[in-house]
Amino acid sequence: MPQTSGGAGRFPQRVHIVEVGPRDGLQAESKLVPTEVKIELIDRLVGAGVTRIEAASFVSPKWVPQMGDGAAVMAGIERVQGVSYAALTPNMRGLEAAMESNVDEVVIFGAASEAFSMRNINCSVEESVKRFVPVAQRAKEAGLRLRGSLSCSFGCPYQGQVPVDAVVDMVMRFRDLGCDEIDIADTIGVGTMTHVQQVIEQASSVFPLERLAGHFHDTYGQALANIVGALQVGMSVFHSSVAGLGGCPYAKGATGNVATEDLLYLLDGLGIETGIDLDAIVSTGAWMSQKMGKENGSRAGKALAARKSINGLRVV
Amino acid sequence: MPQTSGGAGRFPQRVHIVEVGPRDGLQAESKLVPTEVKIELIDRLVGAGVTRIEAASFVSPKWVPQMGDGAAVMAGIERVQGVSYAALTPNMRGLEAAMESNVDEVVIFGAASEAFSMRNINCSVEESVKRFVPVAQRAKEAGLRLRGSLSCSFGCPYQGQVPVDAVVDMVMRFRDLGCDEIDIADTIGVGTMTHVQQVIEQASSVFPLERLAGHFHDTYGQALANIVGALQVGMSVFHSSVAGLGGCPYAKGATGNVATEDLLYLLDGLGIETGIDLDAIVSTGAWMSQKMGKENGSRAGKALAARKSINGLRVV
Repeated sequence: MPQTSGGAGRFPQRVHIVEVGPRDGLQAESKLVPTEVKIELIDRLVGAGVTRIEAASFVSPKWVPQMGDGAAVMAGIERVQGVSYAALTPNMRGLEAAMESNVDEVVIFGAASEAFSMRNINCSVEESVKRFVPVAQRAKEAGLRLRGSLSCSFGCPYQGQVPVDAVVDMVMRFRDLGCDEIDIADTIGVGTMTHVQQVIEQASSVFPLERLAGHFHDTYGQALANIVGALQVGMSVFHSSVAGLGGCPYAKGATGNVATEDLLYLLDGLGIETGIDLDAIVSTGAWMSQKMGKENGSRAGKALAARKSINGLRVV
Repeated sequence: MPQTSGGAGRFPQRVHIVEVGPRDGLQAESKLVPTEVKIELIDRLVGAGVTRIEAASFVSPKWVPQMGDGAAVMAGIERVQGVSYAALTPNMRGLEAAMESNVDEVVIFGAASEAFSMRNINCSVEESVKRFVPVAQRAKEAGLRLRGSLSCSFGCPYQGQVPVDAVVDMVMRFRDLGCDEIDIADTIGVGTMTHVQQVIEQASSVFPLERLAGHFHDTYGQALANIVGALQVGMSVFHSSVAGLGGCPYAKGATGNVATEDLLYLLDGLGIETGIDLDAIVSTGAWMSQKMGKENGSRAGKALAARKSINGLRVV
């Protein structure tokens, strides 16, 4: 029953989905995923209508062995016009590699939590931003789109609560580095809806709302409720991961990235355009789960796959 | 960051949770759960602050063997003052058994879908309502609280779409049978938020909103988003199942009832009172999952259990 406004709040007509499965979804996997599987995953996702995708991470393979084949992945995929392929670039060496691979968008990152910054990248928030100054400058000079990703915006596994001011402060720092888009990430999935709305509203007082993206984890089952809240305050860019690839490194066995299938099912139901075909994403998620020998982390993905095999009915 | 109104929509101050794990959550389990485990489950849930609970179903044990020990369960639990213990009563025999067990509330049921009614209880919707007339009359005479449960309100595994009018029609029939409360159930979890709001708004035109309850399944990951939508149009009674007990009989391996832990995490985050202690529910869900040898179906339940074992931090 598609319609574009709810009983409360008005939703955007169109939402842009950034598919993060091939990078954020895979990076913590201890078992190496073959390069050709990563390539097929990206090509399938783009074939389903995805136009923004995190394809690689040019970090040191010593830190993240799973991402060591970024250049091979970028060389192997079919580059489709109109699709933006992004890569994480932690430093100048990473940026140069990303540029050699001809990525469209580079991603720098930081945390809204001092404790997380110290434990995760072994330096203060202030220092982490300083390190990105030359990367950001060089990326902008090269005409690349620059994205800033802000982890722990709603809570931190080490310090607990994260003040809204700390998020706003980092949004301003990323803005001043020249970021075209900034991700507000709930790295451990602890946020709930009104908290999410509050943070987005504050962040949008210092950076344009249409260039803020929501990156929600479903660790506490809150991701879609949080996305509904974000939509109601006007956010229109969201990250998701096919088959919910990713898990949560801070709580063994817990859920991670919101699944692209679940998000698309919601947006399709609300009549919000994405340009992405749910059936094709469901097939891709089922294929990738099988390749990895893992249970599909998408509820809609599992249900649609099971229902197809029963009676082929589609209710929506 | 508790607050009682979002960026859009105003939430109720207090929500009543009806815990359905011991009945709806267990009834489809093929392996019999020992009576003493059911008793301990109910007593633990009530100990956590639950004041409304589906404790039994007085159906024929030939139909639902798992529910064959309803009288023993009701006799074995500690009856706590102020707590309402409910049971399903499909016919006069069931009602008499429920009354012998001194239940507080009896539940009659029907479907908003003709196809589902025919396949599930082998009669038309009209006929199913007629059969409940004497049950409802006797229950009201005996001073019992009467609840009507309406399945397939947002979609049907056999006929697909279910018109809003069919839901409103059944709400009127239940109202005319004397129901004190009516559950709008998304039996297969296919609804999305604005559809849910539309159905609730229409149903509340013929029955008081404060006595309509939402029963949402998380099969497509939509349950909490749907509950947010329902809260925003003023619904304040919701069903949930500890550890997400229940699954989905229409899609093997798929998710069923929304987990009480996930719902409580949301409501706690929104600052909405429930009187139920999340930690105690998390412990109960972990205990019950272990007893059944099943993975915990609650995302918040899994994450909180895992986090406790890591560093004892609570972020909310």
